Amino acid sequence: MDTVDRWQLPDGVDELLPERAARLEALRRRVLDLYASWGYRLVVPPLVEFTESLLEGVGADLDILTFKIPDQPSGRTLGIRADITPQVARIDAHALADDGVSRLCYAGTTLHARPKTPLASRAPVQAGAELFGAATLAADVEVINLMLATLGAAGLDQAVTLDLGHGDVCGALLAQLALPPAIEAAVFDALQRKSRPDLEAVLAEASPVARNALLALLKLHGDAAVLDRAAAELSPVAPAVGDALETLRAVALQVTAHHPGVDVYFDLAELRGYHYHTGIVFAAYVPGHGEAVANGGRYDNVGRAYGRARPATGFATDLKTLVQLQGVGARESAVPGAIAAPDGDAPALVAAINALRAAGEVVIVSLAGEVDPRCDRELAADNGSWAVRPRRGN
Amino acid sequence: MDTVDRWQLPDGVDELLPERAARLEALRRRVLDLYASWGYRLVVPPLVEFTESLLEGVGADLDILTFKIPDQPSGRTLGIRADITPQVARIDAHALADDGVSRLCYAGTTLHARPKTPLASRAPVQAGAELFGAATLAADVEVINLMLATLGAAGLDQAVTLDLGHGDVCGALLAQLALPPAIEAAVFDALQRKSRPDLEAVLAEASPVARNALLALLKLHGDAAVLDRAAAELSPVAPAVGDALETLRAVALQVTAHHPGVDVYFDLAELRGYHYHTGIVFAAYVPGHGEAVANGGRYDNVGRAYGRARPATGFATDLKTLVQLQGVGARESAVPGAIAAPDGDAPALVAAINALRAAGEVVIVSLAGEVDPRCDRELAADNGSWAVRPRRGN
Repeated sequence: MDTVDRWQLPDGVDELLPERAARLEALRRRVLDLYASWGYRLVVPPLVEFTESLLEGVGADLDILTFKIPDQPSGRTLGIRADITPQVARIDAHALADDGVSRLCYAGTTLHARPKTPLASRAPVQAGAELFGAATLAADVEVINLMLATLGAAGLDQAVTLDLGHGDVCGALLAQLALPPAIEAAVFDALQRKSRPDLEAVLAEASPVARNALLALLKLHGDAAVLDRAAAELSPVAPAVGDALETLRAVALQVTAHHPGVDVYFDLAELRGYHYHTGIVFAAYVPGHGEAVANGGRYDNVGRAYGRARPATGFATDLKTLVQLQGVGARESAVPGAIAAPDGDAPALVAAINALRAAGEVVIVSLAGEVDPRCDRELAADNGSWAVRPRRGN
Repeated sequence: MDTVDRWQLPDGVDELLPERAARLEALRRRVLDLYASWGYRLVVPPLVEFTESLLEGVGADLDILTFKIPDQPSGRTLGIRADITPQVARIDAHALADDGVSRLCYAGTTLHARPKTPLASRAPVQAGAELFGAATLAADVEVINLMLATLGAAGLDQAVTLDLGHGDVCGALLAQLALPPAIEAAVFDALQRKSRPDLEAVLAEASPVARNALLALLKLHGDAAVLDRAAAELSPVAPAVGDALETLRAVALQVTAHHPGVDVYFDLAELRGYHYHTGIVFAAYVPGHGEAVANGGRYDNVGRAYGRARPATGFATDLKTLVQLQGVGARESAVPGAIAAPDGDAPALVAAINALRAAGEVVIVSLAGEVDPRCDRELAADNGSWAVRPRRGN
């Protein structure tokens, strides 16, 4: 391979050079400080686990995203985490095993064997928060509010759209209609792809009630009027749909009380993570980015695989995406100046440098007389002591 | 597999629960702030790269530690980084391509296919700093001082031993002696394992000069007197040894001028990273830990694989090891108290909670009336406004 090729990074894998790296680090700190101020405790799950631990109960979507590698010491298969949420659920269920409400948060690198979407990063820096032990609507509202506050910490809280869905809408319909398993699977697949032609084809021989209800579902997206239409069109077919609709209505009201500027969009056919989520699902969108910038939902059953089923709700985002969306300039602070210092080990010089650094200044020692271009000031001997002055010729 | 097994983590892979996670995060920030205050710019290299990029010119040691996985999109082989240093060298050589002195730093997770030593972590959180473009001794001194300041940031700067070695001591001897390649390789292997019996066996038929010099090397470790002994015993055989000895003497003098409490230990047979390092090598030890807690050295040629050979010197440490060595209690701050707040979306309540969080307080909303045990105070209505008071019954 040529020298030139050694620079290349794999598709979807990127590196952050100083300007973006500094912004990522600043955002990481703001976000973790935000979570701490809401009472969320930081955990650091490992980058790899046995696949049985990583992938239990979370569905095939995550399995496909997960790199698997043989583990030499154990002879078992390791997975590199593609999602941190199941790890945090394991920590809540087993390692911490608190009885009451537990709030946990994290920030760390994940890796995807293939990009989730053609242009997606394969190495997101996932940050998020999870709330365990509270089955109430208030818990979902807290988590959604914290997700929106995360976007605020990134300076991306203008013109946010909050998508809300609820797996029980489709779930109640399918339970009530009791379609043959093969048909139900095909219906689910068509709904997930939001393909009306496929759904019509699959339902060609179904009852008119089933056809109408499931085709209606595909159109039930938009503002709060969608909830009324759904109540009128779906509740007669499957009364259990009503509970999910009321949950969505209440959550939207409470979230907009906290965030009046957020535009709520209901999507009753949203089936992302259907086999994993157990209630409300939500996602945040900002202008200029076609994918959700943060998303989450309720997933009450994940802890069961680790010995303790717990109510759970949470969200995740990719800090690298947020940094990218900030744009150059938006949050870019002026590069702070630095102080050039001569090289030497005289105690007074060393003490002066240490004091400046401790006071928050950047002090760069000029090796072999080469002054770093970031330096706008210099440390110079002045009547036997060391003082900072503007850099000569600057 | 049983439920119970799903908790298990692979050997050498650990997770950090809230108390340790908070200490790791605090140390990470202190260390990165320290590096910034010395003028080192943060970079974030990717978790995976093509193996050709990760492993070029760094020797077989790193190859063995590196997990390799097939990359579906490219059909090539990816390596999960086992060391971040070569990645930073690649960034300096290609992505940044600065002409002058460049100072870079990083902190991130690495992964080892097998533990470096039987009890070592396989998932260190590696932090370090690299100085490119300066071939001077002052650059090595700066990097060693920053490594010692890193231990200081972790509260581990009591009773530090600094090991110093220089690959040119052995290198000059082997060049001068011009042993047959097979013998030289066996000598090198025996020296690396510091096995005197093996070295004697390998040298059984070598000239007395070679035998005496190489067996002497094995005993040349200890305080500064070692440098004088080496000058007496080795310089007559290989005069080039003298330069390396003078470098070691000068570095030790300058470092101890900055850090009078550090105990310097010379080890002239130290061959760690011999095929990678090109000058001085150094390592820091603290009581109670048999392995080096931080180490580094000069590695001037690594950038060549990426199109630009640059002088380079730097060090790395594992932040998780430093946190572990701090011990429970040493740096453990009292868990900060929190304020319990009622659940609700009344504007005055929301504003009071937001103001407290913005002021640095932890405010935990009591979901379904359950108060988080960390709360020592509570937010309560007081004559129509909200005020913080000691928690009742606390």
